[in-house]
Amino acid sequence: MNKPYVRLDKNDAAVLLVDHQAGLLSLVRDIEPDRFKNNVLALADLAKYFQLPTILTTSFEQGPNGPLVPELKEAFPDAPYIARPGQINAWDNEDFVAAIRATGKKQLIIAGVVTEVCVAFPALAALEEGYEVFVVTDASGTFNELTRHSAWDRMSAAGAQLMTWFGVACELHRDWRNDIEGLGTLFSNHIPDYRNLITSYNTLNSGK
Amino acid sequence: MNKPYVRLDKNDAAVLLVDHQAGLLSLVRDIEPDRFKNNVLALADLAKYFQLPTILTTSFEQGPNGPLVPELKEAFPDAPYIARPGQINAWDNEDFVAAIRATGKKQLIIAGVVTEVCVAFPALAALEEGYEVFVVTDASGTFNELTRHSAWDRMSAAGAQLMTWFGVACELHRDWRNDIEGLGTLFSNHIPDYRNLITSYNTLNSGK
Amino acid sequence: MNKPYVRLDKNDAAVLLVDHQAGLLSLVRDIEPDRFKNNVLALADLAKYFQLPTILTTSFEQGPNGPLVPELKEAFPDAPYIARPGQINAWDNEDFVAAIRATGKKQLIIAGVVTEVCVAFPALAALEEGYEVFVVTDASGTFNELTRHSAWDRMSAAGAQLMTWFGVACELHRDWRNDIEGLGTLFSNHIPDYRNLITSYNTLNSGK
Amino acid sequence: MNKPYVRLDKNDAAVLLVDHQAGLLSLVRDIEPDRFKNNVLALADLAKYFQLPTILTTSFEQGPNGPLVPELKEAFPDAPYIARPGQINAWDNEDFVAAIRATGKKQLIIAGVVTEVCVAFPALAALEEGYEVFVVTDASGTFNELTRHSAWDRMSAAGAQLMTWFGVACELHRDWRNDIEGLGTLFSNHIPDYRNLITSYNTLNSGK
Amino acid sequence: MNKPYVRLDKNDAAVLLVDHQAGLLSLVRDIEPDRFKNNVLALADLAKYFQLPTILTTSFEQGPNGPLVPELKEAFPDAPYIARPGQINAWDNEDFVAAIRATGKKQLIIAGVVTEVCVAFPALAALEEGYEVFVVTDASGTFNELTRHSAWDRMSAAGAQLMTWFGVACELHRDWRNDIEGLGTLFSNHIPDYRNLITSYNTLNSGK
Amino acid sequence: MNKPYVRLDKNDAAVLLVDHQAGLLSLVRDIEPDRFKNNVLALADLAKYFQLPTILTTSFEQGPNGPLVPELKEAFPDAPYIARPGQINAWDNEDFVAAIRATGKKQLIIAGVVTEVCVAFPALAALEEGYEVFVVTDASGTFNELTRHSAWDRMSAAGAQLMTWFGVACELHRDWRNDIEGLGTLFSNHIPDYRNLITSYNTLNSGK
Amino acid sequence: MNKPYVRLDKNDAAVLLVDHQAGLLSLVRDIEPDRFKNNVLALADLAKYFQLPTILTTSFEQGPNGPLVPELKEAFPDAPYIARPGQINAWDNEDFVAAIRATGKKQLIIAGVVTEVCVAFPALAALEEGYEVFVVTDASGTFNELTRHSAWDRMSAAGAQLMTWFGVACELHRDWRNDIEGLGTLFSNHIPDYRNLITSYNTLNSGK
Amino acid sequence: MNKPYVRLDKNDAAVLLVDHQAGLLSLVRDIEPDRFKNNVLALADLAKYFQLPTILTTSFEQGPNGPLVPELKEAFPDAPYIARPGQINAWDNEDFVAAIRATGKKQLIIAGVVTEVCVAFPALAALEEGYEVFVVTDASGTFNELTRHSAWDRMSAAGAQLMTWFGVACELHRDWRNDIEGLGTLFSNHIPDYRNLITSYNTLNSGK
Repeated sequence: MNKPYVRLDKNDAAVLLVDHQAGLLSLVRDIEPDRFKNNVLALADLAKYFQLPTILTTSFEQGPNGPLVPELKEAFPDAPYIARPGQINAWDNEDFVAAIRATGKKQLIIAGVVTEVCVAFPALAALEEGYEVFVVTDASGTFNELTRHSAWDRMSAAGAQLMTWFGVACELHRDWRNDIEGLGTLFSNHIPDYRNLITSYNTLNSGK
Repeated sequence: MNKPYVRLDKNDAAVLLVDHQAGLLSLVRDIEPDRFKNNVLALADLAKYFQLPTILTTSFEQGPNGPLVPELKEAFPDAPYIARPGQINAWDNEDFVAAIRATGKKQLIIAGVVTEVCVAFPALAALEEGYEVFVVTDASGTFNELTRHSAWDRMSAAGAQLMTWFGVACELHRDWRNDIEGLGTLFSNHIPDYRNLITSYNTLNSGK
Repeated sequence: MNKPYVRLDKNDAAVLLVDHQAGLLSLVRDIEPDRFKNNVLALADLAKYFQLPTILTTSFEQGPNGPLVPELKEAFPDAPYIARPGQINAWDNEDFVAAIRATGKKQLIIAGVVTEVCVAFPALAALEEGYEVFVVTDASGTFNELTRHSAWDRMSAAGAQLMTWFGVACELHRDWRNDIEGLGTLFSNHIPDYRNLITSYNTLNSGK
Repeated sequence: MNKPYVRLDKNDAAVLLVDHQAGLLSLVRDIEPDRFKNNVLALADLAKYFQLPTILTTSFEQGPNGPLVPELKEAFPDAPYIARPGQINAWDNEDFVAAIRATGKKQLIIAGVVTEVCVAFPALAALEEGYEVFVVTDASGTFNELTRHSAWDRMSAAGAQLMTWFGVACELHRDWRNDIEGLGTLFSNHIPDYRNLITSYNTLNSGK
Repeated sequence: MNKPYVRLDKNDAAVLLVDHQAGLLSLVRDIEPDRFKNNVLALADLAKYFQLPTILTTSFEQGPNGPLVPELKEAFPDAPYIARPGQINAWDNEDFVAAIRATGKKQLIIAGVVTEVCVAFPALAALEEGYEVFVVTDASGTFNELTRHSAWDRMSAAGAQLMTWFGVACELHRDWRNDIEGLGTLFSNHIPDYRNLITSYNTLNSGK
Repeated sequence: MNKPYVRLDKNDAAVLLVDHQAGLLSLVRDIEPDRFKNNVLALADLAKYFQLPTILTTSFEQGPNGPLVPELKEAFPDAPYIARPGQINAWDNEDFVAAIRATGKKQLIIAGVVTEVCVAFPALAALEEGYEVFVVTDASGTFNELTRHSAWDRMSAAGAQLMTWFGVACELHRDWRNDIEGLGTLFSNHIPDYRNLITSYNTLNSGK
Repeated sequence: MNKPYVRLDKNDAAVLLVDHQAGLLSLVRDIEPDRFKNNVLALADLAKYFQLPTILTTSFEQGPNGPLVPELKEAFPDAPYIARPGQINAWDNEDFVAAIRATGKKQLIIAGVVTEVCVAFPALAALEEGYEVFVVTDASGTFNELTRHSAWDRMSAAGAQLMTWFGVACELHRDWRNDIEGLGTLFSNHIPDYRNLITSYNTLNSGK
Repeated sequence: MNKPYVRLDKNDAAVLLVDHQAGLLSLVRDIEPDRFKNNVLALADLAKYFQLPTILTTSFEQGPNGPLVPELKEAFPDAPYIARPGQINAWDNEDFVAAIRATGKKQLIIAGVVTEVCVAFPALAALEEGYEVFVVTDASGTFNELTRHSAWDRMSAAGAQLMTWFGVACELHRDWRNDIEGLGTLFSNHIPDYRNLITSYNTLNSGK
């Protein structure tokens, strides 16, 4: 009766970044902007670090929603990039679903703006088709806590796993011995407290 | 074991507005008044925009609970309007249930004041009778966060989908190409941040 | 798969007030004292108003936990009163369970201090024995929000319904026509905003 | 040693609206958007209601800061409108100061975006020149509470009076008998709780 | 340069209760209703306990603002009661000021609804005329924290002392030996935590 | 369909303390440091009091994560202590799992830093292997509320019971008569409010 | 016009601990209990560390207010201890003032329960008599934030310096070279984050 | 009687960065780490942009306080760098004061960790010596809001101006025409919302 333990596997996971557009970001008010920017870039960095197939999609980027955040465009120059002509639920766009299928992965890591729509709609559709869905809650933003908790409740009840970028990175990595340097750098770049630990540690160590 | 993905369909959905009365609104303290007023009017506007059958009901409006908010009365001049003689759960009123049945819809979008009673009671009854229930959490208000979360927990556990008016509008619309102007106006009227995006966009565009 | 709609029935419900003791109340910090006192007294008043069999129990009242709050003792002079000699979970006390069985009711409305222990333990035990359990969340207090949410999660997952005293009163009453005066007085005494509505209404009406 | 009671006088007051531009508004995160929009429009409405000379100014409106919010432009079609070519402190712009001097008023009611810069800088400069300055705190927005409280502290210490639009309206009006209808409409349009009081009152009264 | 220590003296203090009306109370959202009701009644009780001359005033009580809260009317049946015909600042009403002068006191303890207007305006006027003003912050309510802090800043800068009802009671009483029973009862009736201390103490003591 | 009532049994429970390391603790920002330190030490004290087999594990303690908090090392000098060479999920470490199996217990009480990773990963793995898992939410810390609630949702959905150290102690103890002195001391040392109750009680009692 | 820089001098300072009694502590709800207990004990430790003359006083400790917290009694066995027979403002007690005068110090460091009364009243009186007053804000507790901020405003306006125990310790110590070990131990015992820094540092250093 | 308008002048200002050390940063809990890191780096960037003389100082950087944050060291390779041997108040260090005097500036912009000590102490000392002091509140961090507000109150009362890095940058720059590109880049790098405005603007503009 309990949800089984579905564990992220770096060989079977793809990342979907949905509608992180310059205009839409002004709608995000449930996470403070400095933190949200950091979370989104951390998720992008981990996708690259683990070499996960990543798919970008936008909604109406010629209009007021604005262009995809340039950092994401630069981070994934060769990723499938689906500028949807109008579908609100990215899953209603055939190219988007085809791009996902082409990865051959069955675990989907999803983040986007706004959580209740651009994340929840494709998450629910993917679950219905049998994918294992992992929502990156802290790289997904929305209007306020009311809409966030409504969206979380709907996705969780449908079987999605709620995680943050840090949990995703740790579950994908499994063992520090796979690469201490790489994961340490990822954390140092996106967790100020961790960076400080490393700075102090290195200083003391180099002084030996 | 997971809740299946029940997707709102504009051809199969009706809206129930329960007890948004001038007196009862003074009890709503879990959402700030400017925001709550906007959310309720946004829900009314989307019901009209998608031409969803809408049913109004009130509790004791001659007494201290006060009359239905005039804006709602004006928005739906021809809607069934059930002034309940005493039933607290609107579903206990035969006229109310008959009005719902008369719509022939099986998806019910519910909002009201207060969440734990006027929304939760009919939502639970409707679920029991097999309806698909969508609670508009941000157009439903109550005393404080304790009673909100108690009500959400009870409704979600019983199978209701928690959404906000924005998510409802997006799921009903499906594709911007169905009508960019209309949905854009709805959003512009009820989301100040979105209105600003459009203002800046139009100004720049018209300057070309 | 959803929790079914279990509706409170005034002919089949009993109230359990667990450990509202003068000393233990100083541990309650997740609800502000003025509000908490009001909620507990409102629950007592509704139990009397609906003539629900009510059972009082305390833990070690000769020690630092202190005596039962006098208002509750006075409200239910003839109620079974089980001063437990040591059992932390009231359900482990045979007299307590016997008193519940003696009521012949199968719906239990529970509140107490502290939520995670004095409420959750008997609630979980009662559910296991097939009772329908309604936790009055706002008449139950505990140390902080961490422990509250942990307790709510555990009880809700086990099948308890989370409600507040206002929702309980409304679900028990069903129809205002059963007694307008009585329920109105209950609300007026415990909801300042409601009292104000009535005051304004009566003043205007009497002026006609 | 105490700040003397400087009382707003509708015959001696002018309103300065500084940089309420569509782009800059996305920076405002210390007040929720629905509330902030309402506060700014309420201030505009009261300026018109009391026929106070009003001066509009913007910073770089051709660039990313975006155009003045259209509602303000429409509300004051004949007001002095100073699109500053670059001065951050509006008081550094000679046309702006000239427009203020032309009003002949010595009380300045100021609001703008963002509080710490666009409001505080001209407020401090105006105080230095001997004006009486009233900052409308709830029609002025900024990044977060840190910057708000820093700005309030600096302005208050320099002699500014901190008020909200409601206090400004009340101090200007002095006596309801000057015009019940007009002020009541202003409040009803911008204070949902007040509108509800009026709705209930009128319904009851008309029923006599 | 510092504000001198002006100490409340029960022989030289009067209480002004301004506009605690049933309708206006629905505007108060910076203090939770159960707490606010308790604070206002505690202030009334202390005024009676110390036999301070008390003056009641209301604004437009025939209209939507509603009647004075009945508990206050009953508490002070013989107090001067000035139903203002329109003046927003009670100090603009000659009867109100005359009633104050008639008390012969020079210390004024003020509370009311809403803080920024009904409290701050007469407080500022009284300071200007040389009265010593004590604002009872927790028996004065307003729309939200923005308006509260603006009002507090304005009053404090003008020389008002900000206190709560508990501080006022303690400063007036000076020494428990003047009357233990009386002050203890006042606290027990309005501070649940204190009542619990007394309950536990009495139980233990009586058991000796 | 409901989660059954799994009750902690002191004869069948073991405690897992995961990664409470001096460096990692600086990452914990969802619980205030004084409270968090107290909670962790309270959990350690209760493990000793109930003589529960306890297992300590750390991640990379030679590096920036830092050493295990000395208080824990001292509290359990003979406990299995697994310094993991790299596995992020402690359950991936064979020695750790072997140590758990060696206890012969089937109830696991888990706490650690950070909640989403060091607690959730082994909790999910243990559930999958049929253990009954009790997460001590207030002795587990993480970055912020977003990551906490994501982790709680994932663990609860998988069948874990969320509790705090106080609830764990009470459910293990069952009956005060088993040892009043011992449990009282535990509570007195870690709950300031409880200590105060005992202090007042003892003073009054000794005065008899 | 600005408050001058009055710097704490360990040769000219005394500490006043007012009414930290077991019963009264249950009234403190503006600071979480674990943190408050730590702050009070930290202040006691620093008073001893700097060998500052310290004066204890209590109000009615035979009654419900309860005895002085035992830790304070033990920390200062030889300190003047004034159990006031009834004066609410400790400064009204001649023995208390005499004890202060006997120290010959002109800087008074004050903390107590509750802030608005037991701290503010003697602080205001001491200022009036020309003492330099330093209020330890985090070792002083009260009912809620309303009463805290009212009390802070009154004391600050009268010339008191608001500090916390950490600032007091640093200003008294002046230079780490006076005693690294001692101050480091004080901080390590009362600032968990600082303790962790030292733990990590010592571990790394000892490894050299 | 009011504080006069002291306006920052880029030709007369120096920046003091006090104790932003890797270890001490773990003590900062009144500002979220992502935001705090951004604020500190923004202040560094603006100091460089306006070519303000900048002085770095640290406390015990060989010990647990840890080394200066590397980003600051790199940003100001040629700045005076005073590693204090023990003085807690940097102003007690002659080299530090000499370095300030050597700049010949009379306006000091100060930020540091922790606010109440490392910022407030030198700020108070500088004010006493006649400097104009500007505290950058959002690039200064401390334990919690209690200590922050105590420190702000003490500094403001002594004559310091509280500002944030954004206000400082704007007041120094005075007029966008001095350099649009440079200031725009500074804002774009440190204000995500502003960066988004620019991204959208440039995209639309380049499309012309």
